[in-house]
Amino acid sequence: MKTKRISKKQGNRKSAGKKSLALKQTAIRTSNSRKPALQYLSWSDVQLETMNPLLDRQLIIGQEVMMARVLMKKGCVVPLHSHVNEQLSYILEGALKFWIDGKEIVVRAGEVLTIPPNMPHKAEAMEDTVDLDIFHPPRADWMNKTDAYLRK
Amino acid sequence: MKTKRISKKQGNRKSAGKKSLALKQTAIRTSNSRKPALQYLSWSDVQLETMNPLLDRQLIIGQEVMMARVLMKKGCVVPLHSHVNEQLSYILEGALKFWIDGKEIVVRAGEVLTIPPNMPHKAEAMEDTVDLDIFHPPRADWMNKTDAYLRK
Repeated sequence: MKTKRISKKQGNRKSAGKKSLALKQTAIRTSNSRKPALQYLSWSDVQLETMNPLLDRQLIIGQEVMMARVLMKKGCVVPLHSHVNEQLSYILEGALKFWIDGKEIVVRAGEVLTIPPNMPHKAEAMEDTVDLDIFHPPRADWMNKTDAYLRK
Repeated sequence: MKTKRISKKQGNRKSAGKKSLALKQTAIRTSNSRKPALQYLSWSDVQLETMNPLLDRQLIIGQEVMMARVLMKKGCVVPLHSHVNEQLSYILEGALKFWIDGKEIVVRAGEVLTIPPNMPHKAEAMEDTVDLDIFHPPRADWMNKTDAYLRK
């Protein structure tokens, strides 16, 4: 496996100085009360939740893993934040720029970013983008709709 | 979220009687020795591993989650097996038929199957198929290449 070299960019230092929102209660083990279940779902049937005019999303929730299909219009900004949940972001369409770990990384269709727990990150859609996010454990704040940082 | 009704089919009972391979050592916590790392990867750069003439795959390994891109030619069969790892299978292209939980389910492009830990399943590609598999924890047998059941 070849890992891309990530170059540091000047622009970053600015965002690195901004306050990062360390999200709380993103991993309440609601899953403990749910029995693991076989589910067969089509994304076309999964409820589409509009977070703001530029951001829609859909969730498929397993026992210890959540899959989210995140639809962003060009210019959509996800503010700098962090969470205990591990995140893998696979860009299916478009391009999503991340500010993370002192770097700027534009993740394009066919590319993946693995984000360790508690690593602050900000993102902006450079084009209309379809992003598949995997979280472990499932994002309790997304399930419980306590994710005010996205509802602006 | 709307869950599709899964109908039981006659054909299943046959496969339900077949011996299921309960895979061992699929969740050795090798991840404990790995520091969580930010990784930026393109699927086009990730090593393609040929398992058998009908099955290739690629792995992106996080701390507690693994993402696998599984490329199957029509007719590829994954024998009946089970593992402690939770699995989410998102079909990106093609169609993959599962025998699972006493049912036959054809999962097509744009559809997802969530498979609880230890639930035996068999699969066959009805067309050339691209399947994105998410596992928690990462499949140690896939990482350590001790997955003889796929190398036939």
